[in-house]
Amino acid sequence: MMPKSYYAVIFSSQRNPTGPGQYDEAATRMIELAAQQPGFLGVESVRDQSGKGITISYWENLEAMEAWKKNGEHRLAQKMGRSGWYSSFTTKVCKVEREFGFTYEE
Amino acid sequence: MMPKSYYAVIFSSQRNPTGPGQYDEAATRMIELAAQQPGFLGVESVRDQSGKGITISYWENLEAMEAWKKNGEHRLAQKMGRSGWYSSFTTKVCKVEREFGFTYEE
Repeated sequence: MMPKSYYAVIFSSQRNPTGPGQYDEAATRMIELAAQQPGFLGVESVRDQSGKGITISYWENLEAMEAWKKNGEHRLAQKMGRSGWYSSFTTKVCKVEREFGFTYEE
Repeated sequence: MMPKSYYAVIFSSQRNPTGPGQYDEAATRMIELAAQQPGFLGVESVRDQSGKGITISYWENLEAMEAWKKNGEHRLAQKMGRSGWYSSFTTKVCKVEREFGFTYEE
């Protein structure tokens, strides 16, 4: 059950095909590591064949989100992101105000 | 230039591979149609080979977002979404509070 209001970080990125290696390992590791942080609520991530991706992480509050941003291992990954893993990215910090869902049943 | 604060609708979905046809045409049409609505700021969409997708549309305010939700052609598409195009989806309405970006330069 999600809290009444919480935060989302929308990370939209374009992979640089000629960038440095070990990207996939680092991406997997970052999701594992984020999940261990206090205030982590969840993550969803999609990347298509062209290298365009959207990753959204969800946090209980801004403090939890900021702490993750400053995590040492995460900082190293951010540096690699800027050093060539991505050709571009944007990050948006959002307050989730409402949500609803649907599951198809035959 | 984006306004100081604006809204994002995060639509996370899983395609139903046995669902009805004409999905791709409708998805393209919905993006075209959304872009014609007052208060529309942009959209980004990624779907991977497994059929998992994230589409985020951005709106100047909640009124613009609500008007799009109620658009007749969009309502029909929403109905098809529930009738089998998707096996599940969630929609989250968010207020974007901060953003920053990066472009790699060799």
